[in-house]
Amino acid sequence: MENPLTPEVLADPVALTRALVDIESVSLNEKAIADCVEQVLRAVPHLTTYRHGNTVMARTDLGRGSRVVLAGHLDTVPLNNNFPSTMRGDLMYGCGTSDMKSGVAFALHLATTLPDPRYDVTYFFYEAEEIESRYNGLSLVAEAHPQWLEADFAVLLEPTYGVVEAGCQGTMRATVVTTGIRAHSARSWHGVNAVHAATEVLRRLSEYQARRVTIDGCEYREGMNAVRIHGGVAGNVVPDRCEIEVNYRFAPDRTPAEAEAHLREVLAGYELLVTDCAPGALPGLEAPAAREFLAAVGAAPIGKLGWTDVARFAALGIPALNFGPGDPNLAHHPDEHVEIGKIRDGAATLHRWLAAA
Amino acid sequence: MENPLTPEVLADPVALTRALVDIESVSLNEKAIADCVEQVLRAVPHLTTYRHGNTVMARTDLGRGSRVVLAGHLDTVPLNNNFPSTMRGDLMYGCGTSDMKSGVAFALHLATTLPDPRYDVTYFFYEAEEIESRYNGLSLVAEAHPQWLEADFAVLLEPTYGVVEAGCQGTMRATVVTTGIRAHSARSWHGVNAVHAATEVLRRLSEYQARRVTIDGCEYREGMNAVRIHGGVAGNVVPDRCEIEVNYRFAPDRTPAEAEAHLREVLAGYELLVTDCAPGALPGLEAPAAREFLAAVGAAPIGKLGWTDVARFAALGIPALNFGPGDPNLAHHPDEHVEIGKIRDGAATLHRWLAAA
Repeated sequence: MENPLTPEVLADPVALTRALVDIESVSLNEKAIADCVEQVLRAVPHLTTYRHGNTVMARTDLGRGSRVVLAGHLDTVPLNNNFPSTMRGDLMYGCGTSDMKSGVAFALHLATTLPDPRYDVTYFFYEAEEIESRYNGLSLVAEAHPQWLEADFAVLLEPTYGVVEAGCQGTMRATVVTTGIRAHSARSWHGVNAVHAATEVLRRLSEYQARRVTIDGCEYREGMNAVRIHGGVAGNVVPDRCEIEVNYRFAPDRTPAEAEAHLREVLAGYELLVTDCAPGALPGLEAPAAREFLAAVGAAPIGKLGWTDVARFAALGIPALNFGPGDPNLAHHPDEHVEIGKIRDGAATLHRWLAAA
Repeated sequence: MENPLTPEVLADPVALTRALVDIESVSLNEKAIADCVEQVLRAVPHLTTYRHGNTVMARTDLGRGSRVVLAGHLDTVPLNNNFPSTMRGDLMYGCGTSDMKSGVAFALHLATTLPDPRYDVTYFFYEAEEIESRYNGLSLVAEAHPQWLEADFAVLLEPTYGVVEAGCQGTMRATVVTTGIRAHSARSWHGVNAVHAATEVLRRLSEYQARRVTIDGCEYREGMNAVRIHGGVAGNVVPDRCEIEVNYRFAPDRTPAEAEAHLREVLAGYELLVTDCAPGALPGLEAPAAREFLAAVGAAPIGKLGWTDVARFAALGIPALNFGPGDPNLAHHPDEHVEIGKIRDGAATLHRWLAAA
C-alpha cells in the first residue's frame, strides 16, 4: 500500500483525519495504520521513533525543561456500515472520525510540522484501547518500556467536543447476593424468598443520592446503579438466591478502597463481592504545562465522567487531561461524525500552546 | 416379561406396592407397567377393562345407584439412584413409593379382590401425570372417551400421608415488566433504571399478606411469590427492562378470572402478562359418597395446597379428594419412601368404605 499520509495531507488536520479514518484499524488490526504512522515519523529529522507491537511513539529531545505527551489510540470499534468516510456539508462521517482519529490527526500533524515546540514532546500512538485491558498499547508500553512514558503532563486526545475534560471518574463493579430458603411455591411460607429479599437492596440503590463534588473547579457526579439482576430456580419454587450486579462510578477524590468502603456502607448487611475496579484520576490542573494548556484553550475545564486512559497516566504519576474535537456522545455510534470546524479549532489551540515562545 | 403382579402379590397392598415400584415407569415409558396392569384386570370376571394409550381403566357394572372413581397415575419422575426398591425396617424406599405407586396399589388391590363393592367403581390407572399436561392420561381420556369418567365422586390416590386433602388451590403465573431508559452508567442520570423500578413490585410482593380461607372446614392458604427475576444489558449500561415472574397460588373459592383480577389489583400500575393458569377445585365434601368416605377415614379433611388432578375431575363436574399413604414432602425426592403402616392403614380404610353393606 502506498502511504496515504503524504506531506500535503500531514499539513492539513482535516485531510489527515480523513486519511486516517480511511485506513481501517478495528482493534487488533492496527498493523497497516501503525506502519503508515511509523514511516512518516521516521522520516522527520527532529524526532526519534520507537515501536512496540502496533504502538508507535516519537519524541523530540530538545533539552526543554519539561516534557508533555500527546496521546491517541489508533484503533476503532468494529465498522458499522460507516467505512470509508463520507462528507456531508461541514461534517465528516465514518468509523473513528470522532473516537478518535481526529485527535490522532492533531498529534501526527504537530509531530511532523512543528520542529521547535516549547516543551519536549512525546507523540504516542497506541493500539487496542477499545478492547480488553490486556491488549491496551499504553498499558503494554508502561510495562515494557516505562521510560518511554516519562513526562510532566499528558493530553489524551479523546473526544470532548473541544472542551477540556479533566481527570476521570473511577468505576467499580460488585455483585450483591441475597439468600433465602428454597420451597415449593404452593407452600411458600416454608421458604424464604431471596428475590423478595432483594427489595431492600434495590430500594437503597433507587433512593441513593449520588454525590456531586467539585475538584479544582471541575464537577464530578457519581452514580450507583443495579446494572443486572438475576434470580430464580423454576416457576414453582421459592428462589433461594438472587444476584444483583452494581456499578458504582465514583469521583476521583475517592481511592478504590474508599469507594469500596462506601459501597459496603450503602449496602451494609448484604453479601458483596467486588468483581472489577478501575481507579479514577484527579483533574491534575496544577502542572505548569497544564496551566499553560488551559490558558491556550481559554475555557474552564469540566470533569470527565466516563473512564478513560487518563487514569493510566495518573497511575504513572503523570497528570493528564482529555481534549479532542469529537462529540463523545457519538463515539461507538453508527452515525459517528466530526465537525470540520472543531478539527480546525482544536488543531489551532494545540498549535498555539506548543508553538508559543 | 413374566407378570410380577401374581394373585399373592395382588392380595397384599404392601407386596403390590413393591412390585409396582420395581416396574420402572418414568413418564412416557409406562408401556410395561400398563401391560401388567391391563393383563391382571382383564382376568377379573367382575370388571370390564379398557385401554387408551398407556392408560388402563376397569369398571364394575353392578347397577349401584352411584359410581366412584379410584384414580392413580402409573408414571414416576426420573430415577435418582433410587431404583429398584429397598426395605429399611418399616420403610420402603424407591422412586414412586410415595408418589404414587402405594396409592396405585390400593386401587389395584381393591379392583382384583373386592367383587361386590357398595358403589359401582371405576378403577383408573393413567399415564404421564408428572410431565406436560398434553401427555396427561386423565386429560387424554377426558377428551377421547368422556363417558369412561362419568361418576359421582373420585378419590385421587396422591400422597397425603393418610389424611384427606380436599380440593386443591389454583395456580397462576404472570410476568411483570418494568421499563426504563437505557443510558451509559457513567452518566446514569440520563437514563431511568428499570431494575430500580422493580423495587416497588418486589416491595408489594414481599409485604403481601396472603389470604387464609376456610371452605367446608378446610383451610386454604394462598401465596404470591416472585419466582424469577431477570434484568440487565451490560455492566456499563443502565438497564431499560426488568422482568419478574410471579406465581400466585389461590384458594379454590376464586375463579381464574377473579385470581387474575386480584393479581392485577396488587400489581396495579405495572405491565402484567398472564402466561399460565390452572384453576383450583373446591373441596367437594357434600356428595353422599364423599361423606361416607370421610366417615370411613374418621378424621377431618384438610385443604390441599398444591395443584393436583382433582382439579381435572372438578372441571368434569366430579367432586374429588386426595388420599394416599405417602408423605407429599418426599415426592420427587431421591430419598422417597413410604411407611408400611400407612399402606396397611390406608388400604383398610378404603376397604372399610367400599365393602360396607
